[in-house]
Amino acid sequence: MSGAPATGNLLRDVPERLAEEQFRDLVAAPGLRITRIVSTGQSTGWQEPCEDEFVLVLTGSGTLRFAADDRLLTLGPGDWCHIPAGVRHRVEGTDPDRPTVWLAVHFGGPGERE
Amino acid sequence: MSGAPATGNLLRDVPERLAEEQFRDLVAAPGLRITRIVSTGQSTGWQEPCEDEFVLVLTGSGTLRFAADDRLLTLGPGDWCHIPAGVRHRVEGTDPDRPTVWLAVHFGGPGERE
Repeated sequence: MSGAPATGNLLRDVPERLAEEQFRDLVAAPGLRITRIVSTGQSTGWQEPCEDEFVLVLTGSGTLRFAADDRLLTLGPGDWCHIPAGVRHRVEGTDPDRPTVWLAVHFGGPGERE
Repeated sequence: MSGAPATGNLLRDVPERLAEEQFRDLVAAPGLRITRIVSTGQSTGWQEPCEDEFVLVLTGSGTLRFAADDRLLTLGPGDWCHIPAGVRHRVEGTDPDRPTVWLAVHFGGPGERE
């Protein structure tokens, strides 16, 4: 069972201004989702997901806040962060002057592997 | 069971010249591996992996060849490709003048989910 290769570019069709973050799934498989996220300054509420998340910033920048120690972590181009399941965090904000393009990999959620 | 967040930068400590491709695992979890790959012109032999592979080019460029239709696909910054398990392919070569930095996500291999 081999499908055809799929391809695209994360930096193409990047909206300059958004009312809300934009999510575009590139791959969805059992136990895994790979998504392009575009933010234009948005923050998020607190999240405590039941799956791991790996994020990578391609352009722009974004700041994460972690509840455990109230630590701030700002990610710029090339920076990645692996946030294990259950780690309470939020996006504090992203670059207000240009779009921030993230690659996000969600994996290991319960019940997704069946 | 929540570990601490881990972070790093894909564009830091990039060797300019390598005898062989360099692999650095960022995340290893059941059924998933996220790896930084640095190539400085290398090609590979034919591969027909039993797991899916998602690759993204951050800097430089790389050309994939697919056996089924002998198609060439050149990926530059921001370009990604999802190569399903069982798709026979090789890396034809990468930019000879500068390092090519890839993010690779391998997932869905048999027996890795136990």
